[in-house]
Amino acid sequence: MNYKVIIHTLGWVLIVEAAALVLPLICAIAFSEPYILTFVICILLCGTLGGLCILPKVKNKTMFSKEGFIIVALSWIVMSIFGALPFVISKSIPNFIDAFFETVSGFTTTGASILTDIEALPKCMLFWRSFTHFIGGMGVLVFLVAILPLSDGNNLYLIKAESPGPSVSKLVPKVKSTAKILYIMYSILTVIEALFLYAGGLDVFSALTLSFGTAGTGGFGILNSGISEYSPYVQNVITVFMILFGIDFSLYYLLLLGKIRSALRSEELRTYLGIVFVAIALITVNIRPLYSTIAETLRYSAFQVAALITTTGYSTADFDVWPEFSKTLLVTLMFIGASAGSTGGGIKVSRIMIFIKSIYKEIRIAAHPKSTHKVTMNGRPVEHTVVRAVNVYMAAYIVIYVASILIISLDNMDYTTNFTAVVATLNNIGPGLAKVGPTQNFSIFSTFSKIILSFDMLIGRLEIFPILVLFSPSAWRK
Amino acid sequence: MNYKVIIHTLGWVLIVEAAALVLPLICAIAFSEPYILTFVICILLCGTLGGLCILPKVKNKTMFSKEGFIIVALSWIVMSIFGALPFVISKSIPNFIDAFFETVSGFTTTGASILTDIEALPKCMLFWRSFTHFIGGMGVLVFLVAILPLSDGNNLYLIKAESPGPSVSKLVPKVKSTAKILYIMYSILTVIEALFLYAGGLDVFSALTLSFGTAGTGGFGILNSGISEYSPYVQNVITVFMILFGIDFSLYYLLLLGKIRSALRSEELRTYLGIVFVAIALITVNIRPLYSTIAETLRYSAFQVAALITTTGYSTADFDVWPEFSKTLLVTLMFIGASAGSTGGGIKVSRIMIFIKSIYKEIRIAAHPKSTHKVTMNGRPVEHTVVRAVNVYMAAYIVIYVASILIISLDNMDYTTNFTAVVATLNNIGPGLAKVGPTQNFSIFSTFSKIILSFDMLIGRLEIFPILVLFSPSAWRK
Repeated sequence: MNYKVIIHTLGWVLIVEAAALVLPLICAIAFSEPYILTFVICILLCGTLGGLCILPKVKNKTMFSKEGFIIVALSWIVMSIFGALPFVISKSIPNFIDAFFETVSGFTTTGASILTDIEALPKCMLFWRSFTHFIGGMGVLVFLVAILPLSDGNNLYLIKAESPGPSVSKLVPKVKSTAKILYIMYSILTVIEALFLYAGGLDVFSALTLSFGTAGTGGFGILNSGISEYSPYVQNVITVFMILFGIDFSLYYLLLLGKIRSALRSEELRTYLGIVFVAIALITVNIRPLYSTIAETLRYSAFQVAALITTTGYSTADFDVWPEFSKTLLVTLMFIGASAGSTGGGIKVSRIMIFIKSIYKEIRIAAHPKSTHKVTMNGRPVEHTVVRAVNVYMAAYIVIYVASILIISLDNMDYTTNFTAVVATLNNIGPGLAKVGPTQNFSIFSTFSKIILSFDMLIGRLEIFPILVLFSPSAWRK
Repeated sequence: MNYKVIIHTLGWVLIVEAAALVLPLICAIAFSEPYILTFVICILLCGTLGGLCILPKVKNKTMFSKEGFIIVALSWIVMSIFGALPFVISKSIPNFIDAFFETVSGFTTTGASILTDIEALPKCMLFWRSFTHFIGGMGVLVFLVAILPLSDGNNLYLIKAESPGPSVSKLVPKVKSTAKILYIMYSILTVIEALFLYAGGLDVFSALTLSFGTAGTGGFGILNSGISEYSPYVQNVITVFMILFGIDFSLYYLLLLGKIRSALRSEELRTYLGIVFVAIALITVNIRPLYSTIAETLRYSAFQVAALITTTGYSTADFDVWPEFSKTLLVTLMFIGASAGSTGGGIKVSRIMIFIKSIYKEIRIAAHPKSTHKVTMNGRPVEHTVVRAVNVYMAAYIVIYVASILIISLDNMDYTTNFTAVVATLNNIGPGLAKVGPTQNFSIFSTFSKIILSFDMLIGRLEIFPILVLFSPSAWRK
């Protein structure tokens, strides 16, 4: 294990976090809120500690898959611990575990909250809370790779471990340039959304925070009522952008290059949009009696479908009171999740596709043992190792899922609450049903359950393996 | 597709069913119940139809994997349709869909019931209802293979398609002899249980029906109160036999051959018993405050753990009122299921083991990409095709699971009811929680949902692929 390179990289993560904390500091100054010292302390703490970590010269900078996983897992844990400090120091969220839960929820773009009164938080804290979504959406290590002079081999391990989806597509031959392109496209799309929202009458603060929440497919809002108080225009803008941020970013790059046709040929894109439209249609029919006009019904339905399949978790309606079919469909969308290579969470559409295609292949083999049918994506056969990784991902997902439900059931809440609390955190969605429904929050759980659910969020965002490798004795053995 | 051999074999299935119907006929005569004509009609119908099917000479008796799956799928559907007739003709269950659900539930050893008053049924009908468990437990095609002069190649396809578990172990080189040995051991173990129950003061009728229910790990009882009214001795006997019928029958054969050591070395056996004992211990601690003595608590806990992990589904207590942790643990056991090669349902312990071992393997590969670590069972590497089949089984399982919940959610019942109704049928358990809890029944569902749940039971018992192949267009194409 190359400990030196691990510590060195963690140092850079802390320095990036110190830089990120400058934004809420500016916000505190702009709104003259008495939390300037809070952020200055946090910035100095992260900066100094980070500086100490990067000071010693690292001669051997090579890392392998193992170090990649461990750096990513530790980075996210360290980032969340230090990211929780502003909440604790300012006493906005005095309990450290609660603040840790909230920060993990932010960075992992989950959007699950332990706050009962969001509006009681000062604006600079709300800004930091939403900004964690933006950082976590594309990932802090993707950012590091974009700015740091690391070797391309090291970059690949870090990106692989942090990026969502069954396989990582390099847009350009150099990993560093890929990371740069991704971050630039991500930032531009976020700014465009903010401009649309600003044009709809929102102030700069609201437009920015809501855009961060959409961009990272996170879901933290700034009002207790979620998104329901905003105008239909704002709701529709958010719906469209949620769907856009659930699309593989490499397709936007194809668009930029003018390769519109090959972007539209993506099987995952077609399936993702297909699921979105079918789900909107089915739910619109199912909830039609609850609303007065078709337009209103469609708006609520489209918003909730977009919010849940992209695992953003914003809500405009209390869907816990919708008919059981719509609720079950929404829970199913929570599991499916967005596209690989997007900022969305969940299992990912392409994994589900490989999964279902391998069932189809097995049926063919059962019927015709000599069949040479192969699992394909976009017309090309999927590599055996990818199919295996998808299957093992699903296996690990189920095991973690069942173990988490068992542990939090000790709090003696009802099954729907436990079940959807784990679904909502492991898939980085935010709200679940029943006691953790869209109008409720996670404050009801015990400290122990909150820690478990925090790790579920990390496991979900990092797609299981980094955290498992971190806790696996075989990785630490020589 | 060799249609002739399919029809020929289905004919034999009907003749076996006609023979099986002689037992409840005897029961009707013994208790002088006015249903002698009912059973005579059914016997003549099955016998005549079966006779017509086997009359034409089949020159080409070869079948392949495809025909094997289709014969098994069709046999179970045909068997259930004709097995439902006594209930319909006698007006014990006048509605055909209800009777079909009940019969499928019997043959698949699920034990889910649409009856609100079981005791209102005549004894001969209760006998038939329980006897379907016995037939379905080891399987009707295993029986056919044991008695019919088919070629060994054909036998293997039929056994493979009907027997539970990721791979079929032949006890002796000839498949026909394996089938015979299995049925003899199965019958002897059933008779031993009946003798133990008779020794505990039960009459012959009760001892036999309860033994059928245990042997097939089915769960149909003859009292509205389930098993709770019987003496602690009877409950304990049933507990022990449920656990015994959840063990791979090939291990009993090893015992018979005196190879006790190699039987005890089975990894699946150790894991199965380990899970049983740990679950009993945890639940006993969790439900201790609900009962007056430790002995009573232990009895309830052991009974319910045995009933659910073996997917028998008998109940002595309304576990729906137990604390959430115990309920969640019981639901988890429902998924795990019994051992492969037993009469129990569920995913099967060995599949779960292969599943978890392949996660461990993947973590090792993630940490050490050059690792040559292999998934092993009983010290031998598991074949690649078996691992793949297990993964695809799980994939198909999840897809069917989600689709079923979505469809039955149209009935607008609560999530726990829908969720556990599908768990209980797909895993061949019987009762679920909430509206389909141990003291409730499945009569609340719509006709359409009952048909879906009936197919879930068939899919669960036949382990997915026969039913999927039956409905797959590619299997029927030339």
